[in-house]
Formats: sequence, structure tokens, C-alpha cells
Amino acid sequence: MWSVVNIRYPNGAAYHGPAKQSAPSHTGTRTNYGDRGMSLEAELNESNQYYLTNGIAVIHKKPTPVQIVKVDYPRRSAATIKEAYFRHPSTTDYNGVYQGHYIDFDAKETKNKVSFPLKNFHEHQVEHLRACVQAGGIGFAIIRFTNEGDTFLLPASVLFKFWDNQANGGRKSIPRADIEASGYSIPFQLNPLVPYLSAVDSLIAKKK
Amino acid sequence: MWSVVNIRYPNGAAYHGPAKQSAPSHTGTRTNYGDRGMSLEAELNESNQYYLTNGIAVIHKKPTPVQIVKVDYPRRSAATIKEAYFRHPSTTDYNGVYQGHYIDFDAKETKNKVSFPLKNFHEHQVEHLRACVQAGGIGFAIIRFTNEGDTFLLPASVLFKFWDNQANGGRKSIPRADIEASGYSIPFQLNPLVPYLSAVDSLIAKKK
Repeated sequence: MWSVVNIRYPNGAAYHGPAKQSAPSHTGTRTNYGDRGMSLEAELNESNQYYLTNGIAVIHKKPTPVQIVKVDYPRRSAATIKEAYFRHPSTTDYNGVYQGHYIDFDAKETKNKVSFPLKNFHEHQVEHLRACVQAGGIGFAIIRFTNEGDTFLLPASVLFKFWDNQANGGRKSIPRADIEASGYSIPFQLNPLVPYLSAVDSLIAKKK
Repeated sequence: MWSVVNIRYPNGAAYHGPAKQSAPSHTGTRTNYGDRGMSLEAELNESNQYYLTNGIAVIHKKPTPVQIVKVDYPRRSAATIKEAYFRHPSTTDYNGVYQGHYIDFDAKETKNKVSFPLKNFHEHQVEHLRACVQAGGIGFAIIRFTNEGDTFLLPASVLFKFWDNQANGGRKSIPRADIEASGYSIPFQLNPLVPYLSAVDSLIAKKK
């Protein structure tokens, strides 16, 4: 059995094993990372597992909030939920601790090429990030342009600027050029797949 | 309609309104807080809401983790979960940020009077707290003796000591006397109901 952790295609793309996903497809001479089959969420979960296992950070995705209405108890030990509904989360999806700092973020993917639509964020997520930053935490968004496979960390302050501007009649998206200028490019690599804490290091350095 | 936030019984106990719970019962001359009808979880949720509304801290209870197996989509907008199972949480229930510090804890109630049984904690919860503390976070447990209605904040370091001692054949509970000596008593009050961040202030002061 091949080990998952140390195999790369000749072009440098990661190989995750045949059972888990298809190999990156190629369009002409360009690697199409958008087709590599692993969602940003799955890659972040793997990255967070790497950070946890190596004692670097403790960051988890929160469970999906569910309103449970009906539960059957066929046996004492086996409860089966028979009716439940998805609730709107009141926070972002990810939080945790890194070097004593509170970390809070959401991860979003877009198929857009030139901008990131703000409708991908809900009001309560932005307000939650705002409250976290006010309480001394480090907030941001991880944004992936799936067509190009490019991933960025966008500091919460930049998100707030565009969000508030939208509320005042401004544009409904953040231009990719602004994300490139004000955010941090996160390269795709192995161990971890999405090394976003390197960008967080820069945020921490700015905070000091 | 009475306002919920500013009513007290003559003895100083909180009044939460008739619709929500029964009033504290009295055993002889002693207020029996154990009967006041609000769970520690509900009181913590109210307290966290108070801290959030007042810009003091952003601390939330995580959703119950559920493994979703079958979902019906009768309409586009209305997804109904038809089969799901409770999963074991891999972390504690509460986390968030206070004065820039990462806060992580679990809340436990016991009917025992003289000690807190360690079986109330799962291995993965203790290991999660250990990882959080190692990453620079502030970890603890909030423990309530329901018979007396006494609530304590127990620093994670004390929990680890008893937990590791148990693994080496030591006692399976933490004596209440040790919790009183090494922990912080949290008085019952209004706004917030469980003012545990005052005890966290002491933990932060010790950290410096």
C-alpha cells in the first residue's frame, strides 16, 4: 500500500491515493487544480489534523448545527434521530488556538474568476468575526478561487471594509486584485495541504 | 410583563419568571438551589449571551455532533433529516475568546456531595484540554454540585493531575475539598448568572 503522505506527481501536485479521489486533470499544459477533487473543507480538516498531531495548533471545524425534533431509542445504547432540521450557524465554522492566540475563520469557495461575491457570507458570520476581533482574537476568511485553484487568507479587517461598503450601496463583491493585494496567498503543498498558519504568523506579527 | 433581568427574591435568589422555571424551593431556612430548575448548560448559555451582548467575550457552546445518514428534500428550501446518529464529540463543549485569550472548557454537574467522579469526563475531552493548554490556551472545567447548588471553576492542570493519577491506579474522583482548595468558587448572581470569567481573570493573572 502506498503511503498517502509523501507521493507527488511529477508536476508537483499531491497524490492522495486512488480510493480517495481522482488525480488532477490536465487542460492542455495547465494543471487544473479545480478538478483535483478534494474540497477546501476536506483539505482544511486534513491540515488541522496535521497541526494538531504535530502540536502546532488546536483548530477544529464545528459540527453542523441541527435542530433535533424526534429521537427513537430502540435500545438503550442506540439512539436514532428520526426528525431533525438544519439550523443556521450563529458563528463561523472554524476556531481554535495557535500560540495562545484565538483563531476564528470561515472558508469559502467561488467559481468566479475576477472577484469574490460577498453573498457567500451571511450577516451573522461577519458580525461574529467582528465580535471575535474586538475581543482580541484573530479573524479571517480563507477564500479559494476554484477555477484556478488559488487560495488566499483575507484578514477580517479587509472583509469588514468591503462588507460595510456594500451596506452603503457599494459593490457586492471583493475584486480578486484586492484579495491579492490585501490578503496572503496560501500555496498548495503537502503537510499540511493548506498551510494557512504561515499567513496567520504575519497577522500575529502585525498585531504586536 | 415582568422583566427577567432585574428581579430578585428577598433572599437574593434570582427570579426567572413563572413560565421558564419554578422558584427556588426552601428546605428549612436554607435555599435549595438544586431545585431552581435551570440546568448549568442553560445558565452558561445565558451567561455567554450576556458576555457577548456586552462586548466582554465571545464564547459559544458547540453544536451537538450528529452523523447525518438520510435527508429528504420535499421542497428546495426545506431539508428534513430523516436518519441521523449522535457522534462522540472530539472536543469540549465550550470555547471562545476573552481579552485575546483562547478559552476552552467543559461543564459538568454531579449529584455527589463529597467528590466529583472522573467518569464524567471522557478521555478525548481531557486530551483536547491538554492540547489546548499546550498551544497556549486557558483550559478548565466548570463543575456544579447540584445538591448544594455550588459551582466551581477547576483549572485544567488540577484535572490533569487527578486524571493521570487515576490512570496510575489512583482514586476515581476529585474530592470536593480539593476542588474548593485548588478551584474558584463561582457565586450565583444575575447578569451573568454564572460569572465564571472573574475566575478566568485569576487564571490569566497567574499566566503572566
